[in-house]
Formats: sequence, C-alpha cells, structure tokens
Amino acid sequence: MDMYYHEIEIAKAVADAGVRAVLTYGSADVFFQRTPEEEFKIADDFREKLEGLCKERDIKDRLFYAYGPHSPYGCTRELLEIFKEKSAETGTRIHIHLAETLSEFNDIKEKTGYTPIKYLDSFGFLSDRVMAAHVVWVAEEEFSILKERGVHVLHNPISNLKLASGVSPVPKMLDYGINVALATDGPASNNRLDMFREMHVAAIIHKGVAKDPKIVPAKTVLEMATVNAAKALGLENMIGSIEVGKRADLVILNLEKGTQGTPEHDPYSMIVYSLDTSFVESVMVNGQWVYYNGEFTTIKIDELREKVQSIRERLMQEAGIA
Amino acid sequence: MDMYYHEIEIAKAVADAGVRAVLTYGSADVFFQRTPEEEFKIADDFREKLEGLCKERDIKDRLFYAYGPHSPYGCTRELLEIFKEKSAETGTRIHIHLAETLSEFNDIKEKTGYTPIKYLDSFGFLSDRVMAAHVVWVAEEEFSILKERGVHVLHNPISNLKLASGVSPVPKMLDYGINVALATDGPASNNRLDMFREMHVAAIIHKGVAKDPKIVPAKTVLEMATVNAAKALGLENMIGSIEVGKRADLVILNLEKGTQGTPEHDPYSMIVYSLDTSFVESVMVNGQWVYYNGEFTTIKIDELREKVQSIRERLMQEAGIA
Repeated sequence: MDMYYHEIEIAKAVADAGVRAVLTYGSADVFFQRTPEEEFKIADDFREKLEGLCKERDIKDRLFYAYGPHSPYGCTRELLEIFKEKSAETGTRIHIHLAETLSEFNDIKEKTGYTPIKYLDSFGFLSDRVMAAHVVWVAEEEFSILKERGVHVLHNPISNLKLASGVSPVPKMLDYGINVALATDGPASNNRLDMFREMHVAAIIHKGVAKDPKIVPAKTVLEMATVNAAKALGLENMIGSIEVGKRADLVILNLEKGTQGTPEHDPYSMIVYSLDTSFVESVMVNGQWVYYNGEFTTIKIDELREKVQSIRERLMQEAGIA
Repeated sequence: MDMYYHEIEIAKAVADAGVRAVLTYGSADVFFQRTPEEEFKIADDFREKLEGLCKERDIKDRLFYAYGPHSPYGCTRELLEIFKEKSAETGTRIHIHLAETLSEFNDIKEKTGYTPIKYLDSFGFLSDRVMAAHVVWVAEEEFSILKERGVHVLHNPISNLKLASGVSPVPKMLDYGINVALATDGPASNNRLDMFREMHVAAIIHKGVAKDPKIVPAKTVLEMATVNAAKALGLENMIGSIEVGKRADLVILNLEKGTQGTPEHDPYSMIVYSLDTSFVESVMVNGQWVYYNGEFTTIKIDELREKVQSIRERLMQEAGIA
C-alpha cells in the first residue's frame, strides 16, 4: 500500500513493474486549507483515473484503490464523515494514520474531548474497512473499541522508533484479537522499506520493552507480514498465503545466498531473525516473475539508479544546498 | 571478541581465516563448582596455549587474549579478585557480563548489599582494563562510577531486546562520557552476528524508548562500532579508524549492490539506516583480503555450510529430536 501524492504516476510505475498495490491519495483539508468537498473531489478524481488505468491496462487484479484521509488532525470532521459515508456505500477501504504520537493523543483530547480512537468512533467512523497505521497511543478503553469495530492495525515499528513516537502496544492488541498487520511507513521515516527488517524489529522490540521473551513469536510476526496484511487490505481471498485458488505471489529464498541460512532449523525463526532481502532469489507477482535469479525483470535498475541520483542532485541545487 | 569454550579451536579458526580477534575463556567457578584457583588455571592454560599459537604462526598482531570472568553471579568474589590482581600485574584486559538483567541486579543486591556495579567497585575490580557487556540495569549513582573507573561498556541492543533484558541507558552513558562500544553478544541470543543490524537497532531503539528523535545519531553509532570498539579492546593505536600508522582493516562497500545505496547522501545515515552486509564487496584484515569481490578468500564456504548442516543433524539425533 502507498499513500500520498503523484499517485497516478505511482500507479503507472506499479503497472509497469508488474507488482500489486493498494493506492490512496492522502486527503488533508486542514493542511491544504481546502473545503472538505474540494479535498474529497481530488481523492475521487484519482480513483476515477486509477479505474481508467486499470481498464486500459487490464490490471484490476493488481491495482486497488482505498480512501486516504490523512489523520484525525489533518482532516476536518466533515471530511472524515464524507469518507465514512462513501466507504459504507461503496465498500471502499479507508487508510488513516491514527494515534501515532503522544502530542496527537493529547491534542485530539483537548480539541474534541475524546481520545483519538474514541473521537473517530463517536461519529461511527471505525469499521472493518478501516486500516489504521501506527496506533501507538491507545487508552485502556480503546482496545475493545478497535476489536469490536474490526479495525485493522498497521504496525510500523521502525518508523515509530526512529521518529521517537513510542512503542505500539502490539502484544495487547494481539491478546484482544485485533488484526495487526506489519508495514514499513514511508521513506520519510524509514530509510529502507524492507519487510525483513520490519519483521526482525517487530519480533524483538516488544520482548525487550515488555520484558517478556515469549511474546510476539516469530510465527506471529510472519503472519503479521502475510496473512494479516492481506486481511487488512481486504485481499485475503486473493493473496497472503500459498493456497489453491489464490494468486501466485511468491518470494523464493535461497538459503545459500549468505552464511545465516545454515544450518536449516525452524523456518519461522530463520526468516524472522536470521534472513534478509539478500537471500531473495526470485519474486513472483500474479504468476509472473518480477525478480528472477537476482535480477529485476521489469525494472532497468541501473537506469533507475542514475535517474534517482540525478534527481537528488537537481533537488539539492534547487534547494541551494549542493 | 569471542568468549567461552573450545577457545583454542576458535583461535585456530581465527588464525586460518586471517581475521583479528580478542579471545577469552569464560571463567565461572560458581557454575562449574570448581575452586577459584582451579578455574583460574584453566583460563591461564588457555592463555599459554594461545601465546604458543601466536608464536608458532607469527600472528601476535591478530590474536589477543583477555580474561573472561563470566559475571558477578557466575564467579566467586575470590575468583574475581584473582583476575583483578593478575590484570593489574600484567595489563591484561577483563571481559565480564555486567548488570544484564533485573533479576541479576536484584540478586546481587540481596546477596552482597551492593548493586552489581557498586559490588565490583567495592573491592577495586573496575578499571579502564574492564570491558563490561550489556550494562542494562544501572542505578543512578553507578554512572559516575563507570565513568571514573574508565570502564568500557559493550552495548548489545539486539540481544537485550530478544532476551527481554531491557534497554541499556546508552544515551545517559554517552552523556557521562563513558566509552560505549557496539557488540552483538553470541549466537545463543542473536541469530545474526551482524554489525550492520546492530548499528541500525542501536540507532532507533534509544530514540523510540526515550521519545527523543535526536539522541544516538548515526555518526555516534558508527563510532560505537569502530573507534569506540577499538578503544574498548585497547587496540585503538592499531585499528578502529583509517589512519597512517594503523593496520589496514577495511570494509569496502559497493553502493550498487542493492537499491538502498541510491541516491548517495549523508554517508553516516546511509551506513547506519540503509545499508547492510549485502553491500559489502570486500573486507581486508591486516592488509590482506579475507573477502574479495563477494567471495571468501580464506574460507571454503560451501564445505563449511555442509559441515555445519551435518553437525546440526548429528546433534539433533543425539538429542533424540530428529
């Protein structure tokens, strides 16, 4: 899943690269000082364009749309109500940043009288179509609200640590039976968008902070990165596990790519604690190789690297830093 | 640095592999129910054998010896006193686990009346020849003791999290001017002995736990892994930085080995937050390549992998698990 701007360009890149994505335009009428209606229209225009692209390229099983109201502080209640209603009408999922920082928790409480999760619940925003990113600051009475409404939590441990947001109460959410999926957050807060690193940090941080070496075991972490993530995205009938009837989205690991794949022992522990992206030999999406035997098949990586480097240089020059 | 048993076999492997190491026999008269004198003799026998090996192979600038009293709970005070005296006489460094867990902290306090660091200080054990691993549970008054005695702290963030020991107060130790070096702990508590992973976790964990995104910056982390580590080992005149007069211990990174090396920007942030071992192209120790252009030059890695796998199978059979 990706959120924010230039999303139609991202959609084209997703189409070209042969990967699968859920895309959302980051709506925030507060930040951009637009009316809720204007801001919703931008999101709805992107949805239309995305649907056009899917039809044009015949890739409606690879490109998906979700609403992306930025956060309880980036959106007015009016805009959040529009998304709530449209989501109920059309079944479209909603992606929102929620309870990420203590200052957000305190600010929302001061402004609305409610803690962030309770605030959204006070006007019926929360449902099983909502994917809530971060969810670090949760009041005691809010866990049961998340569970009862069927909200999906997207856990971003590396971003939460690097930005000093705190440590999400994942063990408690798992105890409540809340669906917790693993995610990376974006490149502004996480230098590698790397699910192996995210799995590793998710597996160790909660043990260390809760002083309990048994919580959030490796198998649970792998589920958070696969089946739980598919469930959060509403794509659990299509992807998330290797099963007859699902699409072939596969990551092939070669244990001889490095020294940490030997000896072979518990596969969950090995994947979560020992392996990393360098063990990936091939990746298949929707039955097609997008990375095969150590080479990208759909991306000219050297050209891309040069382009990225030259864009950096231009940006630095324009900013007067270079 | 390595600690524990079969150390002369490890010494031979270090010699063959062409790497540099400080080796210690893990002494623990409490665990093994030996007299302090018997336990010291084993450590001293290993020292003699190691000196013989160094002379035989002419590698005294690659293989070093340190004393390894396991911990304040694994050793009697009598054994710790022997190491203290021998260290003062010969200048030999001491490696010890210290204040790793809360139960250790409480147990030592109950048994001796002192907190762990104060207990060792009460009989003059602490000095600038002491390398203390972990140091997670530190009482307020112990920071200045560590600083005044010149103790070197070896920070093992991944092990401390995985074993649920807690989070070491590294930012406070750095504020006190204590020399903090980065380490991995052993394979029993850390599935990858990987300094890139350790750097990444060290850089994010303290920010997240202290709720301060500015502490323990990338440059500090890289220093912990290099110059501070050399200083802890007493080898700062030989290694730890690239300088005229020091030995050539180099890690060569190729930024085109993966996608995270582009664009080139701040080198400290890139190394600590973005790169990993898969970017390592070559490694030089003491002016000799031990890994060159993606290949081990001193180790037959496929043979080693097969051997490790077969040892695992034998152990599982002997344990009746396989």
